[in-house]
Amino acid sequence: MNRTLLAALFFTAAPAIAQQSITTLPQPVVGDPRVAALRDEALANDHYAWDIVEGLTTEVGQRLAATEAEARARDWAVKRLTAMGFANVHIEPFTMPVWTRGAESAEIVSPFPQKLAIAALGYSGSTTAAGITGQIVYFDSLDALRAAPDNAVRGKIVFIDHHMMPAQDGSGYGQFGAPRRQGPTIASLKGAIGIVIRSIGTDHHRNPHTGIQYFTDGAKPIPAGALSVPDAEQLVRILERGQPVVMHLTLVSQKAEGGHSGNVIAEVPGRDAKAPILLVGGHLDSWDLGTGAIDDGTGIAITAAAARHIMDAGRPLRTIRVVWFGAEEPGGLGGKAYAAAHGKEAHAIAGESDFGADRVWRFSSQLMKSDPAAYAQLTAALAPLGITKNDKGEADGTDVEPTITAGAPWISLSQDGTRYFDWHHTPDDTLDKIDPAQLRQNVAAWTAMLAVLSGGIEPGAKQPKRR
Amino acid sequence: MNRTLLAALFFTAAPAIAQQSITTLPQPVVGDPRVAALRDEALANDHYAWDIVEGLTTEVGQRLAATEAEARARDWAVKRLTAMGFANVHIEPFTMPVWTRGAESAEIVSPFPQKLAIAALGYSGSTTAAGITGQIVYFDSLDALRAAPDNAVRGKIVFIDHHMMPAQDGSGYGQFGAPRRQGPTIASLKGAIGIVIRSIGTDHHRNPHTGIQYFTDGAKPIPAGALSVPDAEQLVRILERGQPVVMHLTLVSQKAEGGHSGNVIAEVPGRDAKAPILLVGGHLDSWDLGTGAIDDGTGIAITAAAARHIMDAGRPLRTIRVVWFGAEEPGGLGGKAYAAAHGKEAHAIAGESDFGADRVWRFSSQLMKSDPAAYAQLTAALAPLGITKNDKGEADGTDVEPTITAGAPWISLSQDGTRYFDWHHTPDDTLDKIDPAQLRQNVAAWTAMLAVLSGGIEPGAKQPKRR
Repeated sequence: MNRTLLAALFFTAAPAIAQQSITTLPQPVVGDPRVAALRDEALANDHYAWDIVEGLTTEVGQRLAATEAEARARDWAVKRLTAMGFANVHIEPFTMPVWTRGAESAEIVSPFPQKLAIAALGYSGSTTAAGITGQIVYFDSLDALRAAPDNAVRGKIVFIDHHMMPAQDGSGYGQFGAPRRQGPTIASLKGAIGIVIRSIGTDHHRNPHTGIQYFTDGAKPIPAGALSVPDAEQLVRILERGQPVVMHLTLVSQKAEGGHSGNVIAEVPGRDAKAPILLVGGHLDSWDLGTGAIDDGTGIAITAAAARHIMDAGRPLRTIRVVWFGAEEPGGLGGKAYAAAHGKEAHAIAGESDFGADRVWRFSSQLMKSDPAAYAQLTAALAPLGITKNDKGEADGTDVEPTITAGAPWISLSQDGTRYFDWHHTPDDTLDKIDPAQLRQNVAAWTAMLAVLSGGIEPGAKQPKRR
Repeated sequence: MNRTLLAALFFTAAPAIAQQSITTLPQPVVGDPRVAALRDEALANDHYAWDIVEGLTTEVGQRLAATEAEARARDWAVKRLTAMGFANVHIEPFTMPVWTRGAESAEIVSPFPQKLAIAALGYSGSTTAAGITGQIVYFDSLDALRAAPDNAVRGKIVFIDHHMMPAQDGSGYGQFGAPRRQGPTIASLKGAIGIVIRSIGTDHHRNPHTGIQYFTDGAKPIPAGALSVPDAEQLVRILERGQPVVMHLTLVSQKAEGGHSGNVIAEVPGRDAKAPILLVGGHLDSWDLGTGAIDDGTGIAITAAAARHIMDAGRPLRTIRVVWFGAEEPGGLGGKAYAAAHGKEAHAIAGESDFGADRVWRFSSQLMKSDPAAYAQLTAALAPLGITKNDKGEADGTDVEPTITAGAPWISLSQDGTRYFDWHHTPDDTLDKIDPAQLRQNVAAWTAMLAVLSGGIEPGAKQPKRR
């Protein structure tokens, strides 16, 4: 826009703006300079978060729920959180079924013999080691499968396609993730012998996206896998040739009852033990294909790092409780266990970081209505990080959801998800996908949030003895 | 730069430029408008190349040298080239050893148990199904391994790192590829029980880059694999903890003598059967991890498409011979077989496309010295495609090298390799990596080159009967 045009617009619009402003000009909210100092220190210098996620992904790696790897992760977590000076570090265990992956392959038998890259979905039914062979029947959406007559599906291997594209708020995952969550059940009920889906992802790499599905409504478990996006597109091209396509599918997996998981809990004790607490965290478990760097190594790292920055500044009025939830991926079991044990305790806020490591771009909170002054302070404290308030936002975070349902006020610090589904649940969820500068911005945002809601931090106040 | 400054520079510099120009102004080379028309038609509308690479990668997929998949690719090639109207379409077979991949895995046993993504290098030694276990010994370069005393290596698994970065001309591949080519031999001669290298690649995906290596100097074959780049970096981080790192390595493979490969040959017969021919092509075989889209599905597609554009325009004076070489990846066996059979025939030019599908950005040719007028015509014909002449360029293309050594003049149409080593020799070498617009630019460049060197195309001249 050139200067002349801009000036013209300005002068034309000015009287109306001025008139409106006189009646509606809000009182300014000045951000607390102590909050700003803490936030900016984290933004410039945080290393806690990187150290946690680098350490966990390197020294433990993948940590599938209820496996011995997740147990090693809990031990690692207790050691690390204790070394960081948190109080009351402990594990709250629970039991659950354990599902593990075995041999996997997908092969086009005819008309064009070739291997495709596949990974079983969580809690898939298992084939024998010999696998199954069946004709592919194509659906471009879950609804198309739903609408199909049973005899179009019976005895075949269902293939469901989709058209998910990247979105900053990740909003495609709900709709386009349905083939993964519900496809196996619907295919099974219609008599399919197996199902393969286009990975719920936005990349073009030969790395399939796994993820949870459950067989419901009495559906018999059938083998269920995700083809990588390039392989799904290859299968579409093969199908477009118009000949019957036969696939040999091997998806071996094991499922057993009585697996062990647990939540790891750590606290920054508040000066007022009776004040409602601030609950923050992420989930410690991961899928087994990558090392769980962005899902959710960064979430646990960001929230613990923020709590540590508060600890570095002194002692908050409110207790900050950091929870590294177990077994989120199979359906938020850690979050449910936490709410069962602690849902009736008074929480001043509950927030989870579980959407990668890219920058926080907006936030929303129930406090908008229940505590407008705090909401205004949060808005002021987060704005310098480029974070906008989202008055229409909703609670987010599988693990904190049961606690929120039990009454805890929620806050969502929403990360930019544009790249998230390139790596989510794939072998590519590894440390190198984390941008350290954006990671620090996350830590700064959570630090600012905790500082605003801390009830005041008393510098120099001694931390109490560890319980 | 603003207008005033530009004007000032222009007027200041003008007298000197004018003075120099009076003595050195070269005669303009006006591009042949018939060549330009052919080139621009290919740039705007080519579909031959996409159809070939889409067809081959979809209907055959990977086509490892000397396997039945490569044989299927030859059959596909004969059918396709015949359907495209080429004459004298035939296979020239040869025999060679055949190497195929079996079960593969790499696992850190201690201190931090986890799986790493690995793929065997071509002609790796084989482990048993039970694999081997050994301590990792780290080298940051091939030279560091060379300098190491044998007793630092004996009985261990060597790990060689490197620091390759993307480059437009792909120049890092020579130097940084050395660990792959020579590392296994050197490690074996020093008594290592196995070797893993950081993939010779510039990406950060969990897809290892395979590639050829040979055991020379009497070295006993040992298992040799490439870790994906993220896994190599993970191994470095694990090693940095300072504890001994033990790896369990399974790299099963089979090697047998008496495999069959072959070159597929097709021609656009020239009006003068005795005129030296124009040889163009790429290689039909691929590594087995991807579908060989950019290595070298596009190379055979581009060169055949260009020849077909000439055919569409009429009949060239010179015969154009398109060769889809077999077994390039294991060491240019097809190129050697071609030179043995045809190296003494008179070639007017020999050129190969084997560096992906991104745009041609410069060219070079022996004609610069042997036929400056043709070189000037080529320069003029290629410039509108953004292709610059490179007076210091060299012959390129493993398959045409033996024919060039036998006396054929060479031409190199160099593709932009900035992204090439992200996908080269990985599972990610698939159709989706091809940019159709850049593919058409390649076809336009090769069409222009063939048109300039064709000796003249007679429109409407009948193609001769197929031999």
